[in-house]
Amino acid sequence: MGRLVMKFGGTSVANIDRIRNVAQHVKREVDAGHEVAVVVSAMSGKTNELVAWCTEVSPMHDAREYDAIVASGELVTAGLLAIALQTIGIQARSWQGWQIPIKTSDAHASARIDEIDGDKLIKRFKERKEVAVIAGFQGIHEPTGRVTTLGRGGSDTSAVAIAAAVKADRCDIYTDVDGVYTTDPRVVPKAQRMNKVAFEEMLELASQGAKVLQVRSVELGMTHNMPIFVRSSFDKPEDIDPHGTPPGTLICSEEEIMESHVVTGIAFSKDEAQISVRQIEDKPGVAASIFVPLAEANINVDMIVQNVSEDGKTTDLTFTVPATDYARAKETITAAKAKIGYARIDSATDVAKVSVIGSGMRSHAGVAAQAFAALSERQINIRAITTSEIKFSVLIDTAYTELAVRTLHTLYGLDKA
Amino acid sequence: MGRLVMKFGGTSVANIDRIRNVAQHVKREVDAGHEVAVVVSAMSGKTNELVAWCTEVSPMHDAREYDAIVASGELVTAGLLAIALQTIGIQARSWQGWQIPIKTSDAHASARIDEIDGDKLIKRFKERKEVAVIAGFQGIHEPTGRVTTLGRGGSDTSAVAIAAAVKADRCDIYTDVDGVYTTDPRVVPKAQRMNKVAFEEMLELASQGAKVLQVRSVELGMTHNMPIFVRSSFDKPEDIDPHGTPPGTLICSEEEIMESHVVTGIAFSKDEAQISVRQIEDKPGVAASIFVPLAEANINVDMIVQNVSEDGKTTDLTFTVPATDYARAKETITAAKAKIGYARIDSATDVAKVSVIGSGMRSHAGVAAQAFAALSERQINIRAITTSEIKFSVLIDTAYTELAVRTLHTLYGLDKA
Repeated sequence: MGRLVMKFGGTSVANIDRIRNVAQHVKREVDAGHEVAVVVSAMSGKTNELVAWCTEVSPMHDAREYDAIVASGELVTAGLLAIALQTIGIQARSWQGWQIPIKTSDAHASARIDEIDGDKLIKRFKERKEVAVIAGFQGIHEPTGRVTTLGRGGSDTSAVAIAAAVKADRCDIYTDVDGVYTTDPRVVPKAQRMNKVAFEEMLELASQGAKVLQVRSVELGMTHNMPIFVRSSFDKPEDIDPHGTPPGTLICSEEEIMESHVVTGIAFSKDEAQISVRQIEDKPGVAASIFVPLAEANINVDMIVQNVSEDGKTTDLTFTVPATDYARAKETITAAKAKIGYARIDSATDVAKVSVIGSGMRSHAGVAAQAFAALSERQINIRAITTSEIKFSVLIDTAYTELAVRTLHTLYGLDKA
Repeated sequence: MGRLVMKFGGTSVANIDRIRNVAQHVKREVDAGHEVAVVVSAMSGKTNELVAWCTEVSPMHDAREYDAIVASGELVTAGLLAIALQTIGIQARSWQGWQIPIKTSDAHASARIDEIDGDKLIKRFKERKEVAVIAGFQGIHEPTGRVTTLGRGGSDTSAVAIAAAVKADRCDIYTDVDGVYTTDPRVVPKAQRMNKVAFEEMLELASQGAKVLQVRSVELGMTHNMPIFVRSSFDKPEDIDPHGTPPGTLICSEEEIMESHVVTGIAFSKDEAQISVRQIEDKPGVAASIFVPLAEANINVDMIVQNVSEDGKTTDLTFTVPATDYARAKETITAAKAKIGYARIDSATDVAKVSVIGSGMRSHAGVAAQAFAALSERQINIRAITTSEIKFSVLIDTAYTELAVRTLHTLYGLDKA
């Protein structure tokens, strides 16, 4: 007997049949004796429709109204799932964000969860054996009493936050894939599903382009040490043994992973652009003169590479931005030329970032060196390199992305047997 | 300078262009110096879609979940209209039922409004010159904290209740017709729009089959003496003089109508079925033995006719029900035969009810008699008659409905010049 949060995304609740399927998944866990809270997204396509309407009325719309509008999709699925559960004999009721309440900041359209009081839900688990069906993605800013949303993919974050609030044993994220893979299986058919991955590794995988989970949900899982299990909502409920180990990937603390690989996975991102600022003065404040204007223009800078100056006078600085921000970034740097002081800008848009992630890197030397050698053997030119404790990334020409990913996947022994 | 509630139904907010048109209507009134609250329905078709999903999951669904689901449609239009208003320079914010709050009973799916505190809205009218855009059709049952809805067409009731709560000067109901007509213009092309109609008359017109307004909104208008102005949302906002008298029908107290006609309008309803219970004993309790089982079966009985017994021993009793309830009603009466004690049941489904309404009937004798003579001249057989203070109804064969309505419309001088 445990306590479980189950989260189902848009494709898992896309129509009434799929919602009935979700109800069967929930019933299985209830029948196994678990106390269950379910977090649901809007039916797939609904949120996009609502967002499109907001934009059609005005591209510069009030984020408070945007939130009131787009949060409505989840209310529908929460209610429908509650009815579907009742129909198969499971006590259930729906909860809107403000009813629990899920208290958030007032950063409308990308609010942060501040506090969830789980007592009301726990009381009803105990007294009524009632499943809580919770509208994901939303909350309330209590001082103003207005509805907030957590940003796209926010239902993952709702689920993990609720799991922490009700002191659940685990948070199951049901999705349209059956777990987290060592890399994108569409690029590397030999990619394998990981059984376990550490929070830190998953954070790097998620932010480096693996699109399974919202990054903030993993951060939250790490903070509260809440194990997150990524599994498929397409598995037939009747085929699953609730006491067995279903297929999926458990995201948990490093200590719970007995045997860790040096490299856990390979992530990549093709929508990158590179800007190199040549011959800037090597003096304090020059980096700020570049990145402050970019931040003010709301441009997200990803990789930053600056080498040690050769002559002690000038150096080059390279950074990457999302391809969609490329033109604006270049304009911003050009406009600030006098202030920054540089010789010229070199830039490229056909670049991709490939990242190798593994907490084993902490204790193994030479992991990156192996990669540089292997890529060089394939004649793949490395434009720039950055590293962190459990990851390194290389910037290469987009055309070589798949080749590089496959090469590294084999190199680190990640290919399926 | 006055205070105005403006209500727009589903066809008036069916898409973004229509919502922009609504914003122009609101701007006109704001520019004229009025304080404005707007009540909106869901985009046309949306509520039906949500109801269909509930029914698809389970025909016998939890009304609390049904309410949580179907109330979501209005949230979308309220938010979109608030954005549309802001875009044209009008201060505006959306309000969900629970935010005001609109406190209702817990009769989910057909809740009654208990109380609305208008102070918050009035304060913002004064301090911010802000238009309140309110999601119609919904409220909250405060003891349980759950969302309620007021039943189909409930946004009319929301609008009038809010008008009373904020002490508005008038409640304007924008709809897809330009007012209330003496009868259905599709049946009688000579039907005319009424400039003014008394609350009592409108109540009879509405409950007798004129579908312009929800009956409860008229009751509420009568209780609070809140003038309701029915007008078209298809009139071009720029063509309307906010200080003039736009086309439409004002529903108000009888005292404000200087020159009243004896007959105000003709209503009719074709979806009727008639059941006559023959030779029941003429003794106390026999009517109850018929109507209690029908009430328990949730069948809405409309006309009831019982004549004075001729022999003091037995009599006949006729009643009508909606055609959709005909089979169930007949079964119910058949099942209760032993208890009721009757000789036989006669019934008919092809019957229509035609009603003549006018507060002038109070002071004019012979109004009904004229009708009976005119119908007889046309060879239209009257199956049953009921009367009230300001109305009488006849039950006839459906085939003669249009002929009867046109005949009575001419008879009482309602035809357009």
